[in-house]
Formats: sequence, C-alpha cells, structure tokens
Amino acid sequence: MMRGRFITLEGGEGAGKSTLLSGLEDWLRAQRLEVVRTREPGGTALGEALRMLLLDPAQAGLSAEAELLLMFAARAELVRKLIEPALTAGRWVLSDRYTDASYAYQGGGRGQPVARIRALEQWAALDLKPDRTLLLDLPVAAGRARAAERDHPDRIERENDDFFERVRSVYRARAAAEPWRFSLLDANAMPEVVLAAAQAALQPLLAARA
Amino acid sequence: MMRGRFITLEGGEGAGKSTLLSGLEDWLRAQRLEVVRTREPGGTALGEALRMLLLDPAQAGLSAEAELLLMFAARAELVRKLIEPALTAGRWVLSDRYTDASYAYQGGGRGQPVARIRALEQWAALDLKPDRTLLLDLPVAAGRARAAERDHPDRIERENDDFFERVRSVYRARAAAEPWRFSLLDANAMPEVVLAAAQAALQPLLAARA
Repeated sequence: MMRGRFITLEGGEGAGKSTLLSGLEDWLRAQRLEVVRTREPGGTALGEALRMLLLDPAQAGLSAEAELLLMFAARAELVRKLIEPALTAGRWVLSDRYTDASYAYQGGGRGQPVARIRALEQWAALDLKPDRTLLLDLPVAAGRARAAERDHPDRIERENDDFFERVRSVYRARAAAEPWRFSLLDANAMPEVVLAAAQAALQPLLAARA
Repeated sequence: MMRGRFITLEGGEGAGKSTLLSGLEDWLRAQRLEVVRTREPGGTALGEALRMLLLDPAQAGLSAEAELLLMFAARAELVRKLIEPALTAGRWVLSDRYTDASYAYQGGGRGQPVARIRALEQWAALDLKPDRTLLLDLPVAAGRARAAERDHPDRIERENDDFFERVRSVYRARAAAEPWRFSLLDANAMPEVVLAAAQAALQPLLAARA
C-alpha cells in the first residue's frame, strides 16, 4: 500500500479556503484517489468539542497559553485518530489548517514563543509535516471585508487588524522559508484561477504517484 | 495585603479528599481566613467544560498526549483566573488536586515523560508551587473498594490496578523528595484523625501569619 499524501490549506479569514477545498476534493476524487477532508480545530469527537469552546465568543478572556494547549490537544487526537491512519491506508488527506496555523495565530497573533510551539509540534503532533501546503494569501483588509459578510464572527474573527497582520506575516515568512513545501496562492484571484494554481502545485505529487 | 497560602490535596481514588477539604475549609474559615475552594480539572468555565470531556467514559480512547494537554489547558486558566488573583488578594486557596496530579496520573499512570510535564508546569502553570500539599495515601485495593461504592465510575476510575499503583508510587516519591512541602497522611485512619493530622501540618502556615 502506497502511503497517501497530506495536503493542508492555510490562510487568514475570508481567504476562500472552503471553496478551494471543495474544488480540490472533487478534482482529486476524479483522479480516483480516496480523499479524506478534515479541518482544524476539529475532525474528531474531541476536536469538534474543543472547536466549539475555542471559537465561542463567551471565552473572550481565554489565556494564550490555554488556547495553544487546546489547539494541540485537538491536533494530537486528529493526527493519531484520523490523519496518520488515513495516510497509512493510502488515502489523501486534505485539511483546512494544520500546525502552520498555530505558528501564525498562537505564535504571531498571540505572541507564544516559537520554541514552545515547535516542542508541541514534535511530541503532540508526531512532528508530521504536510507534503504540500497551499497558502491563500490576501491583504488583511480584503480578507476581513469578505469575512465581515458572515453573520456571527467567532472569538478569533473578533481580533483586530494588528493581530491579523501578524498572522499573515508569519504565514508568509514560513512559506518563504520552506518553498519546497509551500505554494503561495493569490487569494484575490477568481476562484477558478486559484483552483487551477492549486492543481498545478499538486501536480508533482500526482505525477510521482503514477 | 499579605499574600494568601496555596494548599493542595492529592491522592488516589477513594482516599477521602472531599471530606477532608470540607473539614479544612470550615476550620480555616473559623480562623477568620478568606478561603477559596476549587478543584482540578475544573474551577473555571473552561476547566469545568474540559472536566466533562476528560472524565467522560465515551472518551475512552483519548491519547495520553491529548489528556496531558487538556489537563494543562484547564490548569493554565485556573492559575491565572482564580488561584493567583485569590492569593494576591490575601485569600487562602484550597484545591482538590494540582500539578502533582499530572506527574502522578499523566506521568506515572500514562507514561508521559517527566521533562514534558515539567516544561508545561513552567510555562502553562506559571511554575506555581503549593505552600503545602497534603497527600492522602492509601493502598490501591482499599481506595478502589471505597471508590467502587460510587455508581458511575468515570473514564479515569475505570483504569486497572497497575495504573493506580503507578499513580501511588509517583505520589509517594514526590512526597519523599519534597518533605518541606508534602505531608503524607494515612487515609486509612478515621476522618477526624485525618483532619487533625492535616490541621497539624498546616499549623506552621497559620503561625507564620500571626
């Protein structure tokens, strides 16, 4: 059994991750691949319960430390119960966010030290790296304008522009530091154009499989 | 304002922590101290939500890593939102378990490395140590017989004897290593005797205050 591939989508609010995920899921299935789609925080019974807590505006005063620990508790379950078993069974896993999001949001956004996040990545998340990460990049103002169209902003969507500038900055720095893993996609483009760019970025993984 | 004192109770299942806590709470209040009683996991809105998840038998397959992270997420909130503010305001805090329980249960019981727990204690729990820790010690068989009288064992109470032997062993080792902080109490004694021994152990803290 050939191991599946692990593909993650990253990006700020309103970047179009869900639309792209659906497009990629259909496309990969059309290549006769078995695809498992998941999201963070979430994807397991524990993870979805933690997602409700983490995004609940009533938890407005949650400490940055508790937020980081909860994100990795959800991830510890997700990687062990869903991602690794799926990859081992030859399935391709598409995830709406993974550990890069902790570097961006809990690191850049909340100021948690990189070394702390790195240690958690190693022992809690099995040090698993995506085979490819698609970063949907968008100026903060544009993303927020799109996200504002949604009715009820969650606890994290309520942060200020500075927070999201720091998030974006960490995402872009990570993409620049690991070009072999990241593809930076212009999220301002039309959805069909973003999907085509994402497909082009994933083509080498499909070719390697053939 | 003189800083309050932080007193924790530790021990295995059925050791009589709740009974002793109530006795101590009454006794300290009778000394005209302001007392805050709390418990782990729990004590905050987040902590109580996590307690439900952690003790739910439906979470039987929870990974040791996720369990450790959730315990410290609850603790990160508890120490920042309740314990430290109370101590600063001169109140005495009585807690049913604290970080020693993670060394015993997640360390001894689940095999999580001590260095991992120590790092979390430092950054997530502010490296706060109790002024006094009362360890209610009881042979595993005796504690389990008492706990079995309860109707619905929680996820952790369902562990086997080996698990609780490891828990007890870590608790005893920690008490032996830090005799200036720990008081080992024989939980087989009558409740009045246990309470009297606990009062004697706390007397120096009261005397220092006078």
